[in-house]
Amino acid sequence: MAEFAEMSKEELEQAKEAADNEYEELKSRNLSLDMSRGKPAPSQVDHANGMLKEMTEYHTKAGMDVRNYGVLDGIPEMKELFSELLDINADNLIVGGNASLNLMFDAMMRLFVFGAMGEKPWGQLEKVKFLCPSPGYDRHFTICETLGVEMIPVPMTKEGPDMDVVEELSGSDESIKGIWCVPKYSNPQGICYSDKTVDRLASMKTAANDFRIFWDNAYGVHPVFEDVKVKNILDACEEAGTKNRAYYFFSTSKITFPGAGVSLIASSHENIKEIKKIMGAQTIGYDKVNQLRHVQFFKNAEGLRAHMQVLAGCMKPKFETVLKYLEKELTGTGLAVWEEPKGGYFVSVDVYPGCAKEVVRLAKEAGVVLTGAGATYPYKKDPKDSNLRIAPTYPTVEELEQAMELFCVCVKKAGIQKLLEQTDL
Amino acid sequence: MAEFAEMSKEELEQAKEAADNEYEELKSRNLSLDMSRGKPAPSQVDHANGMLKEMTEYHTKAGMDVRNYGVLDGIPEMKELFSELLDINADNLIVGGNASLNLMFDAMMRLFVFGAMGEKPWGQLEKVKFLCPSPGYDRHFTICETLGVEMIPVPMTKEGPDMDVVEELSGSDESIKGIWCVPKYSNPQGICYSDKTVDRLASMKTAANDFRIFWDNAYGVHPVFEDVKVKNILDACEEAGTKNRAYYFFSTSKITFPGAGVSLIASSHENIKEIKKIMGAQTIGYDKVNQLRHVQFFKNAEGLRAHMQVLAGCMKPKFETVLKYLEKELTGTGLAVWEEPKGGYFVSVDVYPGCAKEVVRLAKEAGVVLTGAGATYPYKKDPKDSNLRIAPTYPTVEELEQAMELFCVCVKKAGIQKLLEQTDL
Repeated sequence: MAEFAEMSKEELEQAKEAADNEYEELKSRNLSLDMSRGKPAPSQVDHANGMLKEMTEYHTKAGMDVRNYGVLDGIPEMKELFSELLDINADNLIVGGNASLNLMFDAMMRLFVFGAMGEKPWGQLEKVKFLCPSPGYDRHFTICETLGVEMIPVPMTKEGPDMDVVEELSGSDESIKGIWCVPKYSNPQGICYSDKTVDRLASMKTAANDFRIFWDNAYGVHPVFEDVKVKNILDACEEAGTKNRAYYFFSTSKITFPGAGVSLIASSHENIKEIKKIMGAQTIGYDKVNQLRHVQFFKNAEGLRAHMQVLAGCMKPKFETVLKYLEKELTGTGLAVWEEPKGGYFVSVDVYPGCAKEVVRLAKEAGVVLTGAGATYPYKKDPKDSNLRIAPTYPTVEELEQAMELFCVCVKKAGIQKLLEQTDL
Repeated sequence: MAEFAEMSKEELEQAKEAADNEYEELKSRNLSLDMSRGKPAPSQVDHANGMLKEMTEYHTKAGMDVRNYGVLDGIPEMKELFSELLDINADNLIVGGNASLNLMFDAMMRLFVFGAMGEKPWGQLEKVKFLCPSPGYDRHFTICETLGVEMIPVPMTKEGPDMDVVEELSGSDESIKGIWCVPKYSNPQGICYSDKTVDRLASMKTAANDFRIFWDNAYGVHPVFEDVKVKNILDACEEAGTKNRAYYFFSTSKITFPGAGVSLIASSHENIKEIKKIMGAQTIGYDKVNQLRHVQFFKNAEGLRAHMQVLAGCMKPKFETVLKYLEKELTGTGLAVWEEPKGGYFVSVDVYPGCAKEVVRLAKEAGVVLTGAGATYPYKKDPKDSNLRIAPTYPTVEELEQAMELFCVCVKKAGIQKLLEQTDL
């Protein structure tokens, strides 16, 4: 296909007419599809229905009745399972409630109220800033925005956040207190951090003593095409002598049931001790019945990995559909570039600058809801109005075919329109 | 029985010998019992085992799949059930996670970081104080202590906290920001607040604009002998024109499974709006699978009340055993006074001043663990070293018989010892 930017005005006008016609035809199909959130399809969630079976044993191996009070940091078998799965020492992790987002928010609140390791609580500082590799996860940014944390976008590279920028900023400004990271199959680009990136994050000099890496390994065991190995940040920090730098988060939200899974925070011994002291005032303990259900369902880490292979099988045709349409309809047009993720939940597409909002509007008008343009940037402000996040997991393949056909037409229609406007200038 | 304080030294020494002998005999039985926490017995928890049955319907009435993301404030049927049970408008409540303690801690953290209704965040104030009706619940006090909130003990009366003291203090000191209340079958005394107390709490003038009542209705539907009606603080505040004053907490911890129940926070529309804004950054939503399990198990508020009658049946013989021993062994001795609760989880006993710690030590030495002396007071400091909390729910009646026999002997032994010391002075 020809680069649209190379076309004459007449050619563009012809192309516009073709795209307009296609769009109107698709609109007349009265679609009603939602690709806005990283939400598994019901058919995918069905694979965890074993979790809903009758529970006949409600004691742990050690004889604890999970139906009653006790245990702040999780039942031993759940800790073991996570430990094996993520290669984290069981003593370095706390099993949390139904969502890791909650653990992240609570970690931030603790830093605001209590501070870390004797440093001043962040709530008493004039200014707190966070590095936000972008595009990134909107709910991370919402936590910062809610707390008044100034967000500094950092560009992404194929190996993770641009570490030259990260090092420069965190090394020179002590009000920069941390960074958000989704190290594996990042949201939305599906990028996996290289070992070098992980090591640089662990070993870089930071102006703030209490700089914290919020390591959201949300897709840590979620391959679709290939299981990429990402270096464990806790190991990297241990090696670099910065062992209190990272908080590691994980959950089974996209493994068993979103909103009814089990979450985890892991860190150094000192950090875990500090967290437990405060967490012990917050709760007697998280839901152990649900923890034991998870253990009974998976048996062990191997069982969980096997389950993820089944889920990968559900997702693969969906990712293939998205990529097939992008390639077929947009390759060489100069109107879009995209990542080809090896796992995770999203496909990130950069449309022609200034067109993302218009693409979302057009798609919505024709019955397909996309994640809002800008959502992947701090303050919902994509400086180029270009990045879009496609969440292909919820619709069926048949629905996705229609949605992607429409998506590509919208990208063309908006892009051509923009090029025509620019021609007129 | 004779008042020990009236006895001669010789009589006391005789009584001491008798108590010592009894104690040694009981000690030789090698008991191993725990009455330290308000923990239901396994046989009591068994009554909720229907919650562990296979879940075959995982959609709400409105068709929402509870296995997937969505809904911040709870599924409609859980809100309805709570609404009917507690006579709170469904719009004024949020269904939380597995524990109301967590909701209380989070509410306090929000006040520290964000403040309430435009007032200065408490974390930015020189001093924050809370009124703590005492004896009270140790975990409330732990939240305050963890946050550096200065606790001011307020005496309890038969109608709740001494309202003359509460009004005087909260009306004159603007650093007093709130009060902890367990209004029904209070922990540990089992006192039920009178309507007048509730109305005075709602209508009193407070020096702080953002004074907050933490209304922990933990035993709201937990009668043992009689279901006492306590006035709803939200209604009282509405009537008094102080609708943003109270946060109302509740949970099913002592209804279904402790640590795997469903919790609730309720308040005015304005407060709920303020809470949701921040909570929406903290979580996508709490565990809806567990909410639907609760609804399926109880059907409705009536079903839950019927369940609580069954549990009352479990608890009644235990409370009777405790009271029987106290009456038989300690009436008229002048060595102990106690409450006769109509419901809840505890029996509160005031032993001879200066003896509570010694009673706990003696009981422990003979194999019975009691709640630590002082635990029912802020900073674990009972000024009279007198109050003890008996938690009779976990042991069987047979075990309780032995534990109470020992308890009464310990009270006598410690009391007589103290009287002898005082005689010597």
